[in-house]
Amino acid sequence: MEDPLHGYGGEVRRVLEELGLRVGDRVRVVRGGEVYEGILMPRYALAGKQIIVVKLDNGYNVGVKWEPGVRVERAEKPRQGARRGMLSAEVVFPPPRMAEDKPPVSIISTGGTIASRVEYETGAVRPAISSEDLVHIVPEITETARIEADILYSIFSEDMTPKHWEGIVEAVAEKFRKGARGVVVTHGTDTMGYTAAALSFAFRSLPGPVALVGSQRSSDRPSSDAAFNLRAAVLVAAQAPFAEAVVVMHGETGDTYALAHRGTKVRKMHTSRRDAFQSINAPPLARVYPDEQRIEIIDGRYREPGELEVENGFDDKVALVKMYPGITGEVIDMFVDKGYHGLVLEGTGLGHFPNSTIKAIERAVEEGLAVVMTSQCLFGRVNMNVYSTGRRLLAAGVIPGDDMLPETAYVKLSWILARTRDPGEVRRLMLTNLAGEMNPRHTLELYPRWYHG
Amino acid sequence: MEDPLHGYGGEVRRVLEELGLRVGDRVRVVRGGEVYEGILMPRYALAGKQIIVVKLDNGYNVGVKWEPGVRVERAEKPRQGARRGMLSAEVVFPPPRMAEDKPPVSIISTGGTIASRVEYETGAVRPAISSEDLVHIVPEITETARIEADILYSIFSEDMTPKHWEGIVEAVAEKFRKGARGVVVTHGTDTMGYTAAALSFAFRSLPGPVALVGSQRSSDRPSSDAAFNLRAAVLVAAQAPFAEAVVVMHGETGDTYALAHRGTKVRKMHTSRRDAFQSINAPPLARVYPDEQRIEIIDGRYREPGELEVENGFDDKVALVKMYPGITGEVIDMFVDKGYHGLVLEGTGLGHFPNSTIKAIERAVEEGLAVVMTSQCLFGRVNMNVYSTGRRLLAAGVIPGDDMLPETAYVKLSWILARTRDPGEVRRLMLTNLAGEMNPRHTLELYPRWYHG
Repeated sequence: MEDPLHGYGGEVRRVLEELGLRVGDRVRVVRGGEVYEGILMPRYALAGKQIIVVKLDNGYNVGVKWEPGVRVERAEKPRQGARRGMLSAEVVFPPPRMAEDKPPVSIISTGGTIASRVEYETGAVRPAISSEDLVHIVPEITETARIEADILYSIFSEDMTPKHWEGIVEAVAEKFRKGARGVVVTHGTDTMGYTAAALSFAFRSLPGPVALVGSQRSSDRPSSDAAFNLRAAVLVAAQAPFAEAVVVMHGETGDTYALAHRGTKVRKMHTSRRDAFQSINAPPLARVYPDEQRIEIIDGRYREPGELEVENGFDDKVALVKMYPGITGEVIDMFVDKGYHGLVLEGTGLGHFPNSTIKAIERAVEEGLAVVMTSQCLFGRVNMNVYSTGRRLLAAGVIPGDDMLPETAYVKLSWILARTRDPGEVRRLMLTNLAGEMNPRHTLELYPRWYHG
Repeated sequence: MEDPLHGYGGEVRRVLEELGLRVGDRVRVVRGGEVYEGILMPRYALAGKQIIVVKLDNGYNVGVKWEPGVRVERAEKPRQGARRGMLSAEVVFPPPRMAEDKPPVSIISTGGTIASRVEYETGAVRPAISSEDLVHIVPEITETARIEADILYSIFSEDMTPKHWEGIVEAVAEKFRKGARGVVVTHGTDTMGYTAAALSFAFRSLPGPVALVGSQRSSDRPSSDAAFNLRAAVLVAAQAPFAEAVVVMHGETGDTYALAHRGTKVRKMHTSRRDAFQSINAPPLARVYPDEQRIEIIDGRYREPGELEVENGFDDKVALVKMYPGITGEVIDMFVDKGYHGLVLEGTGLGHFPNSTIKAIERAVEEGLAVVMTSQCLFGRVNMNVYSTGRRLLAAGVIPGDDMLPETAYVKLSWILARTRDPGEVRRLMLTNLAGEMNPRHTLELYPRWYHG
């Protein structure tokens, strides 16, 4: 069972327990002449600080310092009319102290679990809380950086489209233009890997890191990984030596370290674990220790900071088609007939599709579609010269995707096709390592160690 | 560099080296009045035996014992007309000795790399050699079982379709009806996992194990894993206590052990490594040590031998559709409009598709298609009650796929839809654990250990 008073200790915990209060209950905290009424939130801050966190009805969180004269009581559900604006934003207390000597880091919120809260009536999670809220829930980040926070979107990441990638690229670029040292993008985890790849291609050069971060449990659940991940992401944005788009998420199930994964090599590999994000066919870029404010580089082959260079724009007439036994040329035809510009095939093994589909693939190429081959094995490298099927596919005009993730190849092709539709140029760019999406050197340890009893 | 005389030692090796011969060269071996001319093959047999293996022009391999009076010489390329039938099959020597007291095991060859040879002119691999050949190349298997070998297909596994699954099911059933203790199916590795799942559903009960086996390097390459895997598969067929369809392949890069993976839980996870096959969300069933003729059970939850019960037949109007950011309802519509009967969605995270596609999914369900949700994370379990997107998909009639691999869910739906099209019955069967395709208990160690520097 999860602790019903997660993060609370000492005197505050004793008082809350006496009142039979649990996280999620409605409470009223009275301090001097001020009344803070709302939902009791879990605490993720450094241990030992005696603070009660309440989510007000206007959506803001307040942290009220527990000191003589402060009292807390159970509150009833508010009447409908009293829901909004009962307390205005300016009573939020205490505002995080922004140290002027810290590097400026911008947080752009796009939605997802890290910015979501549980609906207490239904138990479901909806994207709701703001970046400002995050700062209040995780005040430690203000010790690492001078934080500025904005909401760009408030959507689940399964609803992200190439158009949203363009919006994120623009918002991040704007922050760097205004002098940010690094940018944190909070994002739903479902398609965070795709967005990380999109940013990797769109930013030809960056003045600092872009850290995408999310959480696997919502930020007002006691078991949430939101705080740890956010602290790690802010640390990366403020201090990392690389200037790439990375995903920063838990490295293991505990709160020891997070990992910064290169945006073109990262994939969500588990539906629910905190360490769901893993690098495939490449080592992670760095281990990140937020408690010790330390970043340990694993892979020194990273991009250094440079001038901001943006090439924004993604073609949304690209599809990812996964091979399965029995797939027919008809499936390829459907995309050709609908006017698609490109297809990333997720073939089997070294990069194969059934021989019965090759005629349809040939036709797709003839009609001007760019067709790229990747492997559903995920690990390893496409090699289409070994078997006759592969050689026939190459002859049909298929572009081999090397060791690229199918997801990354999809994003890359979408990005390329927004720049050029010239077949030779598309091929040249697909075969060029633009953002570390291909790793020429696979060492044995990159293949994970599986459980064999 | 690979050993150009792989497997040869002692006196034979010295003689071959003196002649400057390498595996792949054309040789002539003269023994008494008999002449064996063909390609020098690598040796995979037990060390110490002095035998030269030659692939004759008729496709058969001979193993000629090195003894006084035998001599070997380099041969020239044969004239075109002399290629076939230069030596008839009956000179093959020595025929593997079939011990009558060993358990009867049938080998059914369907093609793929394990039954392929390199075309020396082009360097490409084509499926060509027969099951009989395998027995000659790997004579040790006759020490484990009384082998009977047949060719069913000679195709690459990327060309396998649900119709081929039906043919394999029928052939395997026939072998059991004729008294086989176990059956080995040699198969290309690309779609071996899918076929293993197909056999798992089609055999409701089995008298013994069905071991699918393949190789990642062709059997006449020095680095081939064909011999080791075949020995392990024959051992499983002859001795394993479980009566399930399993994939038997290398467990690590050396020749220490193979693994027997449950057919519904196995996936090819690497394009080229020998240990490409891994169990996902479940432990492998057993470790297999062919050198020691020993099988070590890892997971005791296996099916015991029983009467043969076959329910053959797969619906080929099922598709596997992988989600990517920007996918539209149009993609779902295309399959509905083409008269498909079922769709397995490979969604993101806990089982999500974009909210913009839900109307199309609703329509698919209304038009009678079965729609099943799985996760492209591969690891973990679908849970569609956590987020509003998931609940909307459930309300639209989507069937959650639990912790099933997308590939296994695809095969299962194809098998179910060949039995019934009744929506309630399809749902009931999809939610029922029919062949170990769902594992109710995920222990932490099932998630592999990734390289973190």
